[in-house]
Amino acid sequence: MARVATARVRRAQEADESDLCEVQCVDARKVASARRTARPTGTIQLVADTFRVLGDPTRLRIVEALARHELCVCDLALIVGASQSTVSHSLRALRQLRLVRYRKEGKIAYYALDDEHVAQLLPLAFEHAAEG
Amino acid sequence: MARVATARVRRAQEADESDLCEVQCVDARKVASARRTARPTGTIQLVADTFRVLGDPTRLRIVEALARHELCVCDLALIVGASQSTVSHSLRALRQLRLVRYRKEGKIAYYALDDEHVAQLLPLAFEHAAEG
Repeated sequence: MARVATARVRRAQEADESDLCEVQCVDARKVASARRTARPTGTIQLVADTFRVLGDPTRLRIVEALARHELCVCDLALIVGASQSTVSHSLRALRQLRLVRYRKEGKIAYYALDDEHVAQLLPLAFEHAAEG
Repeated sequence: MARVATARVRRAQEADESDLCEVQCVDARKVASARRTARPTGTIQLVADTFRVLGDPTRLRIVEALARHELCVCDLALIVGASQSTVSHSLRALRQLRLVRYRKEGKIAYYALDDEHVAQLLPLAFEHAAEG
């Protein structure tokens, strides 16, 4: 029994390690080229933050709705099925990364996507998901 | 002194709430339209997971490098400046969401982006960041 368990662990380890190189396989030319063209740390962090803020279903639903219409907070709360307070909190996170902006018209705050790149990101991500 | 502090708190609250609607502003037509066209929960979750996995600087650097070349784990570790074990862990998270795929050639595991959508997401996100 112990031998079976050990064999199982060994097989699991092998499966885990099959996606690693079993030899050193450095291609110095490709490594140098990738290092030379890599973006600065600050840019990488900003883009990672942008993706992370979109990595939440409520925030994604808000962006999805705003990709179609400019909407007020009350409307967004009804659309995403969350409280205005939750929606407002999500909107602040999205605003900090300039994914959405708002304008105040009298007593109403209208939100919209901040630029075209954001509107273009969504269809690509949905197409990727649809191919799963 | 207490009065000054109270006034400060009040101003902070007002600033926090200025991005909310001060009246009920529901546009029933827009709400109904957004609800009708909203993606299913499973799709939203999958896309949120996809964005979240990209919301990490190491994983983003890996995807950035793979957008240029197919690379082995050893090369990726040198490019992103992390251990092979860290890179391998990141690659598994990316593979689970079909952002990268790998093929084994002899003893070497080569990684590449899994589809064109992923390659297209990156430039959009970098352009968005560049406009900050």
